[in-house]
Parts: sequence; C-alpha cells; structure tokens
Amino acid sequence: MIPFRAPVDDILFSLEHVARADRLPDWDAALVREVIGQFGRFAETAIAPLDAVGDAQGCRLDQGRVRLPDGFAETYRAYTEQGWPGLALPEAHGGQGMSEPVLAAVSEIFSGACHALQMVAALVPGAARTLLGFGTPQQQALWLPRLASGTWLATMALTEPGAGSDLGAIRTRAVPDGDGWRISGEKIFISGGDQDLSEGILHLVLARTGVPGEGTRGLSLFLVPSQDESGQRAPVTVARLEEKMGLHASPTCQLVFEGAPAELVGAPGEGLRAMFTMMNHARLDVALQGVAHAARAGAIATAYAAERRQGRDAQSGAPLAIAAHEDVRRMLETAEALALGGRALCHLAAVALARGDAPDLVGFLTPVCKVFCTEAGVTAADLGIQVLGGYGYLSEYRVEQTLRDARVTMIYEGTNGIHALALVTRQLRGGGPEAFEAFVAASGGGEDLAEGLALWRAARARVLASSCPAALAHPFMQLTAGLAYLAAWQRIIAVADRSSDPTRLERAAARVRGSVPVALRGWAALVT
Amino acid sequence: MIPFRAPVDDILFSLEHVARADRLPDWDAALVREVIGQFGRFAETAIAPLDAVGDAQGCRLDQGRVRLPDGFAETYRAYTEQGWPGLALPEAHGGQGMSEPVLAAVSEIFSGACHALQMVAALVPGAARTLLGFGTPQQQALWLPRLASGTWLATMALTEPGAGSDLGAIRTRAVPDGDGWRISGEKIFISGGDQDLSEGILHLVLARTGVPGEGTRGLSLFLVPSQDESGQRAPVTVARLEEKMGLHASPTCQLVFEGAPAELVGAPGEGLRAMFTMMNHARLDVALQGVAHAARAGAIATAYAAERRQGRDAQSGAPLAIAAHEDVRRMLETAEALALGGRALCHLAAVALARGDAPDLVGFLTPVCKVFCTEAGVTAADLGIQVLGGYGYLSEYRVEQTLRDARVTMIYEGTNGIHALALVTRQLRGGGPEAFEAFVAASGGGEDLAEGLALWRAARARVLASSCPAALAHPFMQLTAGLAYLAAWQRIIAVADRSSDPTRLERAAARVRGSVPVALRGWAALVT
Repeated sequence: MIPFRAPVDDILFSLEHVARADRLPDWDAALVREVIGQFGRFAETAIAPLDAVGDAQGCRLDQGRVRLPDGFAETYRAYTEQGWPGLALPEAHGGQGMSEPVLAAVSEIFSGACHALQMVAALVPGAARTLLGFGTPQQQALWLPRLASGTWLATMALTEPGAGSDLGAIRTRAVPDGDGWRISGEKIFISGGDQDLSEGILHLVLARTGVPGEGTRGLSLFLVPSQDESGQRAPVTVARLEEKMGLHASPTCQLVFEGAPAELVGAPGEGLRAMFTMMNHARLDVALQGVAHAARAGAIATAYAAERRQGRDAQSGAPLAIAAHEDVRRMLETAEALALGGRALCHLAAVALARGDAPDLVGFLTPVCKVFCTEAGVTAADLGIQVLGGYGYLSEYRVEQTLRDARVTMIYEGTNGIHALALVTRQLRGGGPEAFEAFVAASGGGEDLAEGLALWRAARARVLASSCPAALAHPFMQLTAGLAYLAAWQRIIAVADRSSDPTRLERAAARVRGSVPVALRGWAALVT
Repeated sequence: MIPFRAPVDDILFSLEHVARADRLPDWDAALVREVIGQFGRFAETAIAPLDAVGDAQGCRLDQGRVRLPDGFAETYRAYTEQGWPGLALPEAHGGQGMSEPVLAAVSEIFSGACHALQMVAALVPGAARTLLGFGTPQQQALWLPRLASGTWLATMALTEPGAGSDLGAIRTRAVPDGDGWRISGEKIFISGGDQDLSEGILHLVLARTGVPGEGTRGLSLFLVPSQDESGQRAPVTVARLEEKMGLHASPTCQLVFEGAPAELVGAPGEGLRAMFTMMNHARLDVALQGVAHAARAGAIATAYAAERRQGRDAQSGAPLAIAAHEDVRRMLETAEALALGGRALCHLAAVALARGDAPDLVGFLTPVCKVFCTEAGVTAADLGIQVLGGYGYLSEYRVEQTLRDARVTMIYEGTNGIHALALVTRQLRGGGPEAFEAFVAASGGGEDLAEGLALWRAARARVLASSCPAALAHPFMQLTAGLAYLAAWQRIIAVADRSSDPTRLERAAARVRGSVPVALRGWAALVT
C-alpha cells in the first residue's frame, strides 16, 4: 500500500500562480500556506489511515442508528478540536472566515485522504451559506456556531424515490403547526443522513408547501433538527442504509420524516432558489473530489511504476522500471495531466467565485468543472488500475477503491447528463457563453486553443440552430469541457517556471497537446 | 434487481447469420439451438442466482482450503451432471465433441450469469486442448475423461511475483525425480487455485527446466495434480487468497509448490509453445466475458430505463420513461451496439478458428477481439451505471457489479497494453495485416468502411516507418479495433432482416455510424 501524500505543493502552485488567488483582497499567503500545510499533515496522519478500514468495514445500522467504522469518531473529534468545520464560516459566528479557495484546497485534500468521511463533513459549508443567505438572524445565531464547532453536522435532503433529476416531482409535504411546520415524507440517497460523529444533525429538507401540480414552484426549504433543545429525538428514522459500489464508510440513508418539527428557511416557494445558492459551491466541491481521486490514483500508479520492474532495456539489458515503457508513460502522464488541469480549472472557478465579479463565468464554468473533473477522476482511476495490472485489481493497492469511490461523482450533484442538457438549453442563453469565450481567449495564444475556440463557436451555432439540442448535449459538453481543460493547461504552462518541477508539468502538457486538440475535432464533428 | 436473461436469440442470430457458423462441416443447427437454449435456461435458473450472493459473501480460506460461497458447490454438481464440462471435449474421451462456436455461446452465457463461477470452470477446455496438442496418449487417457466429467478442474499457473507480462523472468523450478519431476516455486493470481467444487485440481504449471539466463526458452509446461491416485494431497498450498475489486466468488490464489510431483507436457523448453496453443481460445473466451458484461449491463439499463419515469413530455405533459430522453437513448444504444458488435467480432473469429483455414486472420483478429470486447464490457457497464443514476451506484441493481467484475478482463490474458505493443511489433509482420484488410474489405461496401481502411493503411505505414512504434501502440490498436468493430457492424446490418427485431439493430447501427467513423479519424490522427 502506497501511503497518501497530500499534494500541498501542487495545490499551492495552482492556487497562487495559475488561479492568482493572491489577487484576492483578503489573501494572506503565509497564513494560507500554513493552514493548507497543517491540514495536509492532519490528513496524512489521521484521516488517510481511515480510508482502507472504512472501505472494508462500511457503516452499519444498529438499533435504528448508523454506526461509522472504527476510528471515524475519534478522528472527527480531532478535526473539530482543531477547528476545521468552521474554516470558511464567518468569524462572527465562531468560524475562521477563510475564503472559498482555501476551503477548496482543504476539501480536495480531505477527499483524497478519505472521500467517505469528507462526504459526511462536507455539507456544513453549504448549509452555512444557505443560512447566511436565507436564514433569519435568530436562525443564524443558533445554528452557525453549532456548525462551526462541529457539534452539529448537516445534510441536504432533496431526492425522493420518484424525484431525482426532476425535483418538481417531490412529494414530501410541510404543513404549518403553530409557529413552525411539520414535515412528512420519504427522502432517499441522504449522505450522512445519520451518523455517530456529531451530537446533532441539521437536515435541510426540500418539501412541498404548495399544491403538487405546481412543480418546483411549490417547494420550500426547511431546517429539520434531528433533536430538540432538550435532546428529545425528532420523528426522523433511518428506513434503510444503502450498500454501494464504493464510499462504504459514507452512510447513504433513506430517511422517513413523520411529522418532524421544522423551520422554514427563506420564503415559502423559494426552496429551489435557496438551494441553488449553494449549488456552485457544492458542484466545485464535487469537482474537487474528482480531482482528488485523479491525483491519488496518479500518485499510486506513479509510485508503483517507478519501483516495479518488468522487461529489460534493449541496449544495456538492465531491468526496466515499468515507468520507462511507452504505454505506461502514456497512462501516467495522462492521469497526471487530468489531475493538474482539472485542479487548475476548479481553482480558476473558485477564485472567480470568491472575487464575486464574474457571475456569468462562474455560472458557466462550474458545471463544466463538475463534469470534466468527475470524469477525469474516474478516467485517472481507471488508468491507475491498468498501470498496476493484476495488482491494480487487488484491494491491497487501493487504486481500485479510487475508482469505486470516484464513480458516484459523475452522478450526484446533478448527473453529468443533466448538466450537459442544461448547457445546450439554459446555459447557452445569457452571458455565460461570452464570458467563457473571453476566459478561453485570455488563456494565452497558441494555435490549438484558437482552433478549439473556433470549433466551439461553430458548434454552439449548430446547437442554437438545432431543433433537438438535447441530442447534441453530450458531444457539446465534451467539446466545452475539453476546451476549458486546454485553456487551463495553457495557463499552467505560462507559469510553469514558478513550479518546483517544471519538467514534470512540461511532460504532462505535451501529453495534453498531443491528444486534446484531436479529441476536440472529434467532439466538434459530432455536434451536427 | 433485474433478473438475468440469457441472450440466446441474439447469440444464435450472430452465430448463424453474421458469422455463418452454419457453413461449418459439422454444424447441426437444430442441435446447436437446443444446446444453447438448454444452457440458457440452466444459467437463468441455477447459475445467475449465485452471482449476487457470491459477490456479497466472497470466498474464504478455512484451514488452508478455499471455500466458495453458498450454493456454488450444488450448482457445480448440477453443471457436471448435465455434462457441460465436456461440451467441447472429444467424444472419445467422454466429451460431447461440440465445436468452438458452440462453446463460445455457452461460455458467454455462463459469464453473463456468473462470471466468478465461469472463471473457475473455464480453464477446462484450455487444459484439454493442451493435453490434446502436447500430451502423451497415456496423459490424454487419464486426464481428459476426468476433465470431461467435471470431477477434476484445471488451473493455469503462469504468473509469479516478478514475472507478469514478462514470463521470461519465471523462477519456479522443475527438477527430474525418477520417472517424473518435482516443482518448487511460488505462483500468484491463480484463478481457481483451490476450491471445494471438484474432487481434484490439475494445475498446468510453467516452470524452468533450463538455466535462468535463458529467458522463455528454458520454460517447460507441467501437470501438477492436487492429489495422487491414492488421494494423498500434493505439497501445493494456498499461501494467500486475494481480495479484489470484483469477482469475489472467484478464488484468486497465491500457490506455493514445495517439491510437488509433476509430469512434463510436451518437450522440455516447449512450455511457451504449448501454452500458446490455448491462447487464441482463451483470449476469445476473455473477449466474450467482456461481451457478456456489455450485454448484461445493457439489459439492466434498458429494462430500468423503460420503467423509470422522470420529467414530462413537452407536448402532452405525460410522464416520460427515461428511455425517451436523448442522452439516455445515447447511452442505451451505445451499450447495445458494443455488445452486439463485440459479439459478432468474436463469433467471426471463433468460426474462423473452428474452420482452421485462416490462421493469419485468427492470429490477427483474436487479440483485437480481446482488447475491443474487454473495453466494451467496461464501457457498457459504466454507461449502464450512468443510466441508472443513483440507483446504478447501489449494489441492489447489480450493474455496478458488472463493472467491477468486467474490469479485470482488460488486465488478464495479456494486458490490453501488451496486446497493443504486440500489434505494432510482431503482428504487423507476417500475413496478419493482409488477412485483416481482406476481412474488412469483404465486410461490404460503405464509405465509412472504405475511409476507415484507408486511414488504417496509412497509419500502418507510419507505424512501420516509426523509430518508436511502442509510442503508437495505443492509438493504432484503438484504430484497428474500431475498424474491426465497424466491419462487424457492416456485416450485422447486411443480415439484419433475418433478426427478430431489425429495428433494434438499425438503431444501434445508426449510433455506430454516428460515432465510430469520427473516432477512427481521431485515432488515425494520433498515429503520427
């Protein structure tokens, strides 16, 4: 087993030099380096060792309550004692007020060390943002300090058996009850729906306050605490704990709400709008889970390929490390390029999000990051398995776990197909496309990028003129994502000399230049 | 859970009409249909129910012996009682003398129902072929009836910790001992290395009789029975039972031979040659495992997508089955095309192999089938997961198991990278390329195929002229495999009217025509 190493240097290079996070007004470079380095050490020593045991043991249901695998509760306690839950929450509410890009760095490292535990903790920033955007001062004063201290964790309870990609079909109902509301219904696929880490769980529940025919307009967002102020448990039960391809240590629950006391967040009927405020953040977080898996799979494969010998050098007869074989190099450099380029793309979006002055670009780029990076995570994991050959298929080297854990990222937070559909319908209207064009054009010169942009413009025109844009969604998303990736690499190469290992970047960049332009032509040809 | 249905009609259509197995001299169409139909029913009722329990329970080591999951021994007994182990073995040795294409059909159905159990049983035909090709009459008379009756199963013990793709590094030694030999050494990744299904296990072991420096020339092939005629166990022990990504019910063993009694098969130093006689068969078998997973994943996704409703029709407002959504159609039709086209390709190779008059084509096409179909299995499984969305990630629907089980096929029986390397080195010399060109040209007209063939010829010339063909191995294999797939589809479409559902074939063919020619241009562009 190859131990997890937090890619702190790669992340700092990407944040500072590629995404220019140092231009953010409140950026304290020394503090950021200290924080990310500290989390990296914590992740390597305390979080990463949970990943294998978590995969092997999984969660279990014990008398209606979810138990996480051995060691999870202890590490979560250390995580809260060090103040990580409140990293990006306002100082006024007990947090540390760090910016989105720092959270992105920490979140990626967390996912690389143990995606399953990260999942359970990762909904806190989203819940906090929702409260900050839509909660009353009282709600903020009560809940934000609890989230910042880690005594409470949060969930996002949207999906129902008949309502996945189509939230308009939600049937969970909220009815007024005195000063508050009561919620009844069934929610599925609730990550961290129950666990034994935190004292309480704050469920953010999307429920119907209007009539069913209204679709998404009748939906409102509610806070449903797992217990009241006296510690009395609410009528929210775990009906089922799902068995999954991966993320065995992340409890995916079916929850039944039977008249659970609830508080409205925001106005009635504003549920989707409240939810969407956290969407760009949540999608970047998922994109970074993909990056984390790509980086981890690449690191395992690179370490293995440097040690493992097979065959001999044609000239000298000396044993060859498999890293010297052409096809292995192709796989290693491709995986590395996916991790580095995907990360750069996410950081560019995260910095734009934190800057707050480019909403069109952020809105356009975020789902592209989500699709590109989640597919990059799965592809790199697959390449990593192949580099290790028979050993890649064994649990022992844990590269197969990266594929099993990464695979869900292409599905949750909006399936990649749904994002592609939104791209060819909603996203191509409005200011997004121009902002994206400007982003690509500003990424530097190069014939490949110019050709890619021309192909993209022509393809966009064909999508806009098409009577069935949905049929073009997949190739157009792939074209868009590939172009964004090429642009990110152009930006990386422009600052490669500030990296600690420019040669490594140049090798990965050569792999990108050797394959991505051809792929773009192919995707463009499919948008007809 | 969607029950396994053996794709008997698709297989018969492919064998009879696409691959023209009916032209084989000993082809008894009525008998073949009866045999395949009968195995299909057995697979659906007795084998397929083992697949989920096998995945969940896995194998275990109990006092040095491997135990398979519940129900495996009973089903194996029924399998032997019905005579399936001897299906393709000569009648003179207790078999039923059916031809390779019938075995291919049965083997695919077996893999689709339970790849893990198929793995354990699947080495019998290969071992029998080796005995028929290289064994003495006494060896044949002793072992073939035991293999045909299923009282003995076989393994293939090649790989060692330091010798995977590079068999020249094998260190297991055989030393003469009286009339026979004794084998000492360590073998890894031995499928069915131990089990509790059969009375005995006949290990086919590659061991060194010459000096280490001789590479593969010093290797010989041996029979090592797990027990002698008195039932006394040989000194062959299971040092380890691997935990894997999938195929949990297929025991992958590390075996230690400590002076185990052995018989030589063939001449000393002929070990690799003896092994390679079974390679084309074994590779087609692995290719068909890929086809089986592609077909199974496609069937699960198709059944799910027809039932699952999400969203509404824009005109009528009626709930839409997700199969009606463009992106879901893309995924379903792509998975279906991969299964149908991959199967046709395997059947074309299997019929040529059985006919015995086109060794160049068989030698060239077989590794292409292996690479194409194993990647098709993984791709289709991945698409199947995506069609099911969150449900695809759950163990419950078992499409995620198809991916986990299929993934190893890209690794074993020669990694796909090794086959690509062999293609640009050994395979491009000799009569293979001309035989392949003739095969493609004979697949029917069509601009796409003509363009693909021209691209392939030009790429081949570039490979032959390259100073580093290994760097072109991956794209050239993908180009070759894609062209073979297009040719197979051309042959399917030419006889589509003999299928029970020509419309279904036409839809899949349209998906192939819409994407494969573009992909071929891309791969050709990468061979530079």
